Amino acid sequence: MTGPNDLNTEQEGSPDALEALYATLRTNFPDERLSREPGTRWAYGMDNSRLHHPADIVAFPLSHEEVVVLVQAARAHRVPLTTRGRGTGTAGGSVPVHGGLVVVMDRMNAVLEFRPEDRLIRIQTGMINAELQRIVAAAGFFWPPDPTSNALCTVGGNLGCNAAGPHAVKYGTTRENVLGLKAVAGTGATIIAGTETTKGVVGYDLTRLLIGAEGTLGIITEATLKLTPLPDARCLIRAFYRDMHAASQAVSRLMNQPATPAAIEFIDGNALNLMRNHAQNPDALAIPDTAGALLMIEVDGTRDALESQTKMIQQAACGPLTPDRPESAEGASAADPNAPLSLVIAHTPEEMATLWSARKALSPTLRHVAPKKINEDVVVPVSRIPVLIGELDRISLRHAVKIVNFGHAGNGNIHVNLLIDPEDPDQRASAETALAEVFSTVLSLGGTLSGEHGIGAVKREYIRKEIAPESLTLMHGIKRVFDPDGILNPGKKIPD
Amino acid sequence: MTGPNDLNTEQEGSPDALEALYATLRTNFPDERLSREPGTRWAYGMDNSRLHHPADIVAFPLSHEEVVVLVQAARAHRVPLTTRGRGTGTAGGSVPVHGGLVVVMDRMNAVLEFRPEDRLIRIQTGMINAELQRIVAAAGFFWPPDPTSNALCTVGGNLGCNAAGPHAVKYGTTRENVLGLKAVAGTGATIIAGTETTKGVVGYDLTRLLIGAEGTLGIITEATLKLTPLPDARCLIRAFYRDMHAASQAVSRLMNQPATPAAIEFIDGNALNLMRNHAQNPDALAIPDTAGALLMIEVDGTRDALESQTKMIQQAACGPLTPDRPESAEGASAADPNAPLSLVIAHTPEEMATLWSARKALSPTLRHVAPKKINEDVVVPVSRIPVLIGELDRISLRHAVKIVNFGHAGNGNIHVNLLIDPEDPDQRASAETALAEVFSTVLSLGGTLSGEHGIGAVKREYIRKEIAPESLTLMHGIKRVFDPDGILNPGKKIPD
Repeated sequence: MTGPNDLNTEQEGSPDALEALYATLRTNFPDERLSREPGTRWAYGMDNSRLHHPADIVAFPLSHEEVVVLVQAARAHRVPLTTRGRGTGTAGGSVPVHGGLVVVMDRMNAVLEFRPEDRLIRIQTGMINAELQRIVAAAGFFWPPDPTSNALCTVGGNLGCNAAGPHAVKYGTTRENVLGLKAVAGTGATIIAGTETTKGVVGYDLTRLLIGAEGTLGIITEATLKLTPLPDARCLIRAFYRDMHAASQAVSRLMNQPATPAAIEFIDGNALNLMRNHAQNPDALAIPDTAGALLMIEVDGTRDALESQTKMIQQAACGPLTPDRPESAEGASAADPNAPLSLVIAHTPEEMATLWSARKALSPTLRHVAPKKINEDVVVPVSRIPVLIGELDRISLRHAVKIVNFGHAGNGNIHVNLLIDPEDPDQRASAETALAEVFSTVLSLGGTLSGEHGIGAVKREYIRKEIAPESLTLMHGIKRVFDPDGILNPGKKIPD
Repeated sequence: MTGPNDLNTEQEGSPDALEALYATLRTNFPDERLSREPGTRWAYGMDNSRLHHPADIVAFPLSHEEVVVLVQAARAHRVPLTTRGRGTGTAGGSVPVHGGLVVVMDRMNAVLEFRPEDRLIRIQTGMINAELQRIVAAAGFFWPPDPTSNALCTVGGNLGCNAAGPHAVKYGTTRENVLGLKAVAGTGATIIAGTETTKGVVGYDLTRLLIGAEGTLGIITEATLKLTPLPDARCLIRAFYRDMHAASQAVSRLMNQPATPAAIEFIDGNALNLMRNHAQNPDALAIPDTAGALLMIEVDGTRDALESQTKMIQQAACGPLTPDRPESAEGASAADPNAPLSLVIAHTPEEMATLWSARKALSPTLRHVAPKKINEDVVVPVSRIPVLIGELDRISLRHAVKIVNFGHAGNGNIHVNLLIDPEDPDQRASAETALAEVFSTVLSLGGTLSGEHGIGAVKREYIRKEIAPESLTLMHGIKRVFDPDGILNPGKKIPD
């Protein structure tokens, strides 16, 4: 919502400071890893938000020690420093809104130590998430955080935003899957935090403090990740419901029984309509005419246990058994309008891919409705999803802004998409008002403004709605301890 | 290791300050919840360590607001404030080593909100862990942290030390099972941290920063706990091995397959000898003559899945199949000296209680060997347990200090017990030297000095061995932000 023109530019490095910084860095970095070339500066001035501000200098470090050099030099010359991976973030977290030095981490992608016997891997944080998964899968493990962008995003980005994606419902978020870190504070000091072990209580928990801090407290250069054994079997349930109320009840039942699904993704009625009207091959999606919500439920586990787990989960998805419907089964009972309209289970990778196609057909269709989507990732307690969805419908009507929702239902993590034409000032204004109401509603339901996309530059001014002034004062104090000169990712995460 | 006489007493409140503080508090607290009575001051001057220092004033708050009053008053009069639950800690963390005000939390034990449908409960932190478990079990849930002292210890103590007990191997530690907190900083400011949801990335993670801080950054008054559905079936495997090397190999195999046990407890050969020689009814323990290590492996899950899970876990406990031993079974193969000497599985609660009796027989027998045990809870990566156990044997021989080990093998969390007569200065000196070598060994193996007992007053001076100076500087900075006058639990957690 905030364009670069709205941003305070006081903290930009002066031309002299930038010149001096560049001269310093030239003595440490070869030409191919240090750039002032306009195309490079432009390219590293954007991420997956609409924000853009060119970098002044772009550096590509290869080691922790080189990052120390970069931070010390930026500090000495009082030049802002923004760290980035592949720029898949949607909140402008890696856009250098005050210019300055951009540190691109994706060449720091080495495996430093892989010890399957200790369920850990230590890597440089510029490694792509999917590459990490490939490496650890060879030994029978996975790293549970796998955001939808996992083919592109770096582990460092996952750490910066605590981004975990769909499997957090069973396996926790990023902060639950990291053992320790190496980082560089804004002072240039090296931070060694955490342990190689799953228990540890020596000192304060700097590991979790840096995770989710979006590069404003330190640059995480290396991470020791906690690995989980790959489940040896998996299946996928696709269930259509009459409406989000019925689907949300199913989500509550799913979360209130011992077989926790590996993922519970949902798509609301507006999104289903988009798919009906705009998907390339809508018949293949087999959306029932009366469906107003879709759940995709992933089940994983050991091979012998999968069948019984799936049965429990299927039963929870179908709802309480009634005399009319003595056992859980595909299809709805006439007596229970909240039972699924249809339910299918895919067991082979091919069948699962076919079912996922419905979910994957969604994003492209959003473009048919409006040129821009304002993509939020609010979170509410699971039991309050139906209230939120009802309120979102009302907000949509009140402000004539199309809202489409999908997301990670098991965590209550809802991707609220406001679809607008940004060239239309009326639509922009309506969207801003609607968004403020969305946030107020989320907070009134005990929720939080961002599950994993982060705050970046875009949501920073909303933070005071959620965080009390006394807590914010402590956060400012922490920021000053780690980054006394305010050089690390200025203009992000917490309001000044 | 540190007696009260060794402690710096500079920070004690002056008699005038104490008098003024007492006068202030008298206007806020009724007589039955504020005490200067010598017996009360003495009783609240100890915990489960050997440290003792009487409190000057003891207060029993009932609400967050009363804790704010206590902190603000202590700060105004510059009097040290030590928070405690039931004093089950073994590191002196709740001993008021500088005197001053002791805040006893165990009357703050209310349920504030219980929402099974959102898998959460919000409580006051003075609630006893076992009471919490009883309340949430009624709705089919449990809270995974359950230290051995769970019948006595408060949730606040669990939070302060990040103490989680045996089930952390499958369910994570305390920090992985808390959603949000309310607390009072040393400034008297109210901290509201975290969310009601399993995802959330707004602001810095003050929740995890306060967990494990042992009351040095803030007093946690209320906590929103993440609940887990109770498994509906459980069984227990008891396996004796020739030595810790064989048992450790089994632990590695157990952690390197997808069916993660709910607990993997171990007891070493020295501890088995104690049980052989001193247990009330050693025959009932059925310890094989040649056994040098014991694993207790708990399996939990859904009823239908338990059998297959148990089979996988049993197989991992038994080791690779060989031509001589074509299927995993009770008893050892002559061809594989590392296979279990005996392995039994208990399915009913009564059978499980019988098997656990071996483990529970251990603690009383320790007293037969020496009047004092120095009880450490170091952690090493799982694969390095056998190396550590070997080194501990050598340290024990070198310094003629009896060392007995047991603990949570799945986390590499080893309770190292040095058994000595504290009246014998030679034994004390040997134990100190031995302990320093234990810590050095642990750190050289990539381990950490405390898994969950905490640092308290006892281990504080060892912290510099583990935490690098630059990280410690940041921790001191955080301490100053939260507690600028240093009134919260002085003399604990991190060295000055």
